[in-house]
Amino acid sequence: MSDLPARVTIKEEGPREGFQIERGAIPTADKIALVDALSDTGLDYIQVTSFVNPQKVPGMADAEAVVAGMTLRPGVRYAGLWLNQQGLLRAIATGRLYLEGKLTLYASDAFLKRNQNRTREQQLAAQPELLRMYQSHGIAVRTGFVTAAFGCNFEGDIAPSRVVELVAEMRQIAREAGEDLSLIGLGDTMAWANPESIRRVVGMVRDANPDVELSLHLHDTRGLGLANAYAGLQMGVTHFDAAVAGLGGCPFAAHAGAAGNICTEDFVLMCEEMGIETGVDLEALAECARLAERIVGHPLPGKVKTGGSLKAMRRTLSAS
Amino acid sequence: MSDLPARVTIKEEGPREGFQIERGAIPTADKIALVDALSDTGLDYIQVTSFVNPQKVPGMADAEAVVAGMTLRPGVRYAGLWLNQQGLLRAIATGRLYLEGKLTLYASDAFLKRNQNRTREQQLAAQPELLRMYQSHGIAVRTGFVTAAFGCNFEGDIAPSRVVELVAEMRQIAREAGEDLSLIGLGDTMAWANPESIRRVVGMVRDANPDVELSLHLHDTRGLGLANAYAGLQMGVTHFDAAVAGLGGCPFAAHAGAAGNICTEDFVLMCEEMGIETGVDLEALAECARLAERIVGHPLPGKVKTGGSLKAMRRTLSAS
Repeated sequence: MSDLPARVTIKEEGPREGFQIERGAIPTADKIALVDALSDTGLDYIQVTSFVNPQKVPGMADAEAVVAGMTLRPGVRYAGLWLNQQGLLRAIATGRLYLEGKLTLYASDAFLKRNQNRTREQQLAAQPELLRMYQSHGIAVRTGFVTAAFGCNFEGDIAPSRVVELVAEMRQIAREAGEDLSLIGLGDTMAWANPESIRRVVGMVRDANPDVELSLHLHDTRGLGLANAYAGLQMGVTHFDAAVAGLGGCPFAAHAGAAGNICTEDFVLMCEEMGIETGVDLEALAECARLAERIVGHPLPGKVKTGGSLKAMRRTLSAS
Repeated sequence: MSDLPARVTIKEEGPREGFQIERGAIPTADKIALVDALSDTGLDYIQVTSFVNPQKVPGMADAEAVVAGMTLRPGVRYAGLWLNQQGLLRAIATGRLYLEGKLTLYASDAFLKRNQNRTREQQLAAQPELLRMYQSHGIAVRTGFVTAAFGCNFEGDIAPSRVVELVAEMRQIAREAGEDLSLIGLGDTMAWANPESIRRVVGMVRDANPDVELSLHLHDTRGLGLANAYAGLQMGVTHFDAAVAGLGGCPFAAHAGAAGNICTEDFVLMCEEMGIETGVDLEALAECARLAERIVGHPLPGKVKTGGSLKAMRRTLSAS
């Protein structure tokens, strides 16, 4: 069955997820230039930086400077990432960011232990406090996200029933705090998904939660990113995370083969060709991809920035 | 609807399509090394070279030497490409190749005019003679191929009905010569297809030709290659052309953005993860991809050669 949505919402994560993994410092002015260029493409959500410990992630030490330097365009939600209250406070202090609360649960116990040194039970127990933190700042919590929802390098395959269970748990936790999640995101954090597992897991989560919208966060480490995105579109998924030019990873051994999110402009072309509205100007976005490539100084995996868009070709042909 | 096949046949085109476009000569010994390595992966069809005019394609001047130097492995079909009787005679003369006849029709009149300086009518009129040429050498003609079946840089979108019409015409031509086509290939020669157009065109061709198997030749110039392949699998397509490491194109501007066929090892991983048999040892194939990268001396687009296979990870996890 095919259930393609008429329109999708794209969360651009390139500036944040992308520059974080690059070796060598990216000049703050370059980061600002890319964010400003992206905000002129029609993208209405751009994750611009992350407020993490500068000792641990030196590349993000200029988070405040990036946010202060960018030109706010009306209608664009400029978002940031934080991992704790300290980070949230820094984001709030900028006074220029779109702030949203989010609950995140790991589907992989092994990955949870490794990343947060927590058990499944400790993870659940920590959520109400996180919710209270958002509420104390007047920030609504509408999004729930499941990390490693399709598989994990440290645990292997994840049972779809486990994902459905986690979604039910996070929705219950939200309800008990008087909130209600309206968007559920599934993360293929370590690129274990395939188009059929996307259909299976999304289908089960959708059937159990017919009242929420679904989002996919897909990494392209094994090249299946857009095939997985297409499978998600067939299942009616309306929200996708993506990174301009495929920023956030590198197909070459230097970065141990981990790749970033699906490439925004390649995904936009796929949607555009299938009649799915994105609100994005593909030509302008491809120009941003070429800018991102110049900024990092090495080839980035996106294809449309060199392959070109079909709309542009059709224009040329009808003009000739 | 989903109609995934239990098994697919992969035509490896890397050595032929790949090396042809590389700048600078690839040593014959390297070409032979890659062909020999590929023949140990379980791939049962490898297109090793093309017998074209050495003046026009210097990189293929060593066609005979490659064929003479490779080690024939039982069960592997080693194929070549030719564009005319002269090329066919060279292929026959090697005495070591799997020879098959093929009818090819262009769906784009503009591309046909440009490449062969022929009209639609002249193209049809030329086929019976081609068939007689094969028959005179005792070579059966079982395959028909439609070039630019989804769109063309010189003509734009191609009407699906035109593709169905061409398939009917080539089958009629074959029947009149006492042959019967059993495999129909559709080529997305210039990467105009999207997953939905694949479903539409494949569906129409399949409905009109329920008695033949279908094949897809997909270029990845706009990054939709594997998404298009997945759409083809959903429509029951059982034959796919592919190129190890994504040889045959380069995602970087140097090659004007044209990309090669879908990457064989990435496609094999997708199939393997969805339970579709390929008969290929993915680890061995990924090693071939790394060999191809060393041979051409620049990064190639395939992801699995750096991202790794999931089967291997599962083995490691269950062993630990």
